[in-house]
Amino acid sequence: MQSHTIHKNCGHFGWDNSLDPILLAKPGDVIEIETVDASGGQINSESDSSGLNDLDFSKINPVTGPVFVEGAEPGDAIAVKFLEFAQSDWGWTALIPGFGLLADEFPEPCLHIWNIDTCSSGPCLFGAGGKIPLKPFCGTVGLALSEPGLHSVVPPRRVGGNLDIRDNCVGTTLYLPVEVDGGLLSIGDTHAAQGDGEVCGTAIESPMTVSVEIGLIKSAGFDFPRFETEGPVTRHIDGSGYFIATGIGPDLMLAVKDSVKGMIDWLSASQDLSDSEAYMLCSICGDLRISQIVDLPNWTVSFYFPKRVFD
Amino acid sequence: MQSHTIHKNCGHFGWDNSLDPILLAKPGDVIEIETVDASGGQINSESDSSGLNDLDFSKINPVTGPVFVEGAEPGDAIAVKFLEFAQSDWGWTALIPGFGLLADEFPEPCLHIWNIDTCSSGPCLFGAGGKIPLKPFCGTVGLALSEPGLHSVVPPRRVGGNLDIRDNCVGTTLYLPVEVDGGLLSIGDTHAAQGDGEVCGTAIESPMTVSVEIGLIKSAGFDFPRFETEGPVTRHIDGSGYFIATGIGPDLMLAVKDSVKGMIDWLSASQDLSDSEAYMLCSICGDLRISQIVDLPNWTVSFYFPKRVFD
Repeated sequence: MQSHTIHKNCGHFGWDNSLDPILLAKPGDVIEIETVDASGGQINSESDSSGLNDLDFSKINPVTGPVFVEGAEPGDAIAVKFLEFAQSDWGWTALIPGFGLLADEFPEPCLHIWNIDTCSSGPCLFGAGGKIPLKPFCGTVGLALSEPGLHSVVPPRRVGGNLDIRDNCVGTTLYLPVEVDGGLLSIGDTHAAQGDGEVCGTAIESPMTVSVEIGLIKSAGFDFPRFETEGPVTRHIDGSGYFIATGIGPDLMLAVKDSVKGMIDWLSASQDLSDSEAYMLCSICGDLRISQIVDLPNWTVSFYFPKRVFD
Repeated sequence: MQSHTIHKNCGHFGWDNSLDPILLAKPGDVIEIETVDASGGQINSESDSSGLNDLDFSKINPVTGPVFVEGAEPGDAIAVKFLEFAQSDWGWTALIPGFGLLADEFPEPCLHIWNIDTCSSGPCLFGAGGKIPLKPFCGTVGLALSEPGLHSVVPPRRVGGNLDIRDNCVGTTLYLPVEVDGGLLSIGDTHAAQGDGEVCGTAIESPMTVSVEIGLIKSAGFDFPRFETEGPVTRHIDGSGYFIATGIGPDLMLAVKDSVKGMIDWLSASQDLSDSEAYMLCSICGDLRISQIVDLPNWTVSFYFPKRVFD
């Protein structure tokens, strides 16, 4: 049973340690947090791609909070255990000009609106044959930085933030290094599904209500966020195996791009998909893995796409 | 039933398109291939770490072959389906000075000899509490390059080679771009277990006998190796969930190193392991994933270590 509910109007843009806390929480408290979608309401279920060129980036990725955690001091870690995600009935995925791993190759805006059946746990449909298993999670979970002033919400940092780790889902506990008294925890950017990499820059972006349990580890003393899962992380999507395209070379970023381009080529040649649709599906379902990073001077990057999407 | 067996004395060091083929194979043929361990016999089940400083690198990573695939021409792809791995009863993992992701932090040689129970499919034991589920695969599977001369076997290239993809295991089909007539396929560097990344530079290195079925795709026209799996790739090891350490920043390589260092710290602090032992276990069981590569300017790298190893 939650101790508190924070409504979605109690949010902020960017990180700033001078913001007044919305709530004082104790370790052990369960908090219900409403989130806004990553466009901050600029995209809705009736939108088309025409608005993507005019997005106001100062209103991107609002987060709900901040929560002051009693007893949290610099050097500690705040634990956030994800208990429940109550989904809404829609979401969006976009190619936003200038944003995403392959921004140079995809200059045109593209928007897909998803219908989410909140009564079933069934997959989301895409086009003629795509079926996307959902696994809701928080894209952005973070604390305030010790440096004063307003900091963009876009990059994640050692205190967390826009981590976009698709396994920050039900059952996972995330540990965030504290830099200021109380930590100042905020949460937002909920995604109904995403693969490792979020390669096109967006996932299935969707507002939700998230329940979390707050914990505190005194003198944790680690440098970056850590987390642990209660169980497997890919069983919702791995049952039929994978198609995998590789990129190989001495430049990790280039190898990453080659692997994703290889998969877009593979999917668009083998399924009834445009390159833009294949790129969006790669972002939502595909996983970016580093197979080896030791065989000098060339590394192997592998992009895994689950066959189950087209079963 | 295999058409041919290639014995382990029929091998070579490095790639050279002027090597005479050992065997002429047709698409559809099943070939049994004996491999030598990656030290080329310089390490055996009685070895200790004293020999690691004197390894002759010209004899590292021998491969068995080459096989001339009838009908294969530049622009085609040779398909290699992995049918069976007959394991031997031992393997080794080493920290080799100057080699591996964290070579600067681990200058001392270290060798672990594994006992493998070939009668059971049970895990390999490590120290007091470690249990490593095995999943044998080929680290090196490749074709000859079009460029003449001898090319080091260490780096993988667009024709494959030392890919070190731990999912090149039973049930997987690997597609390699052909650059010379017949492709000139060779196989070696078999591993009993490895995680994505092979971060310390070695896996459970172990000689085996591998059965593969050869296929051919005419005019495949892709730039890098591709592969597909018949089913899930982590179910042998993911049942109890994961510990995950992250690295975050604008330099992918640095973020990778931070994530692995975070996991070594976590494991050595929570288990009865030295840093060197934790590093080796990370290489054998841990998976390097890129959680997001779009939230400018900082990327999120996550290193997943399966809890099952310490269940």
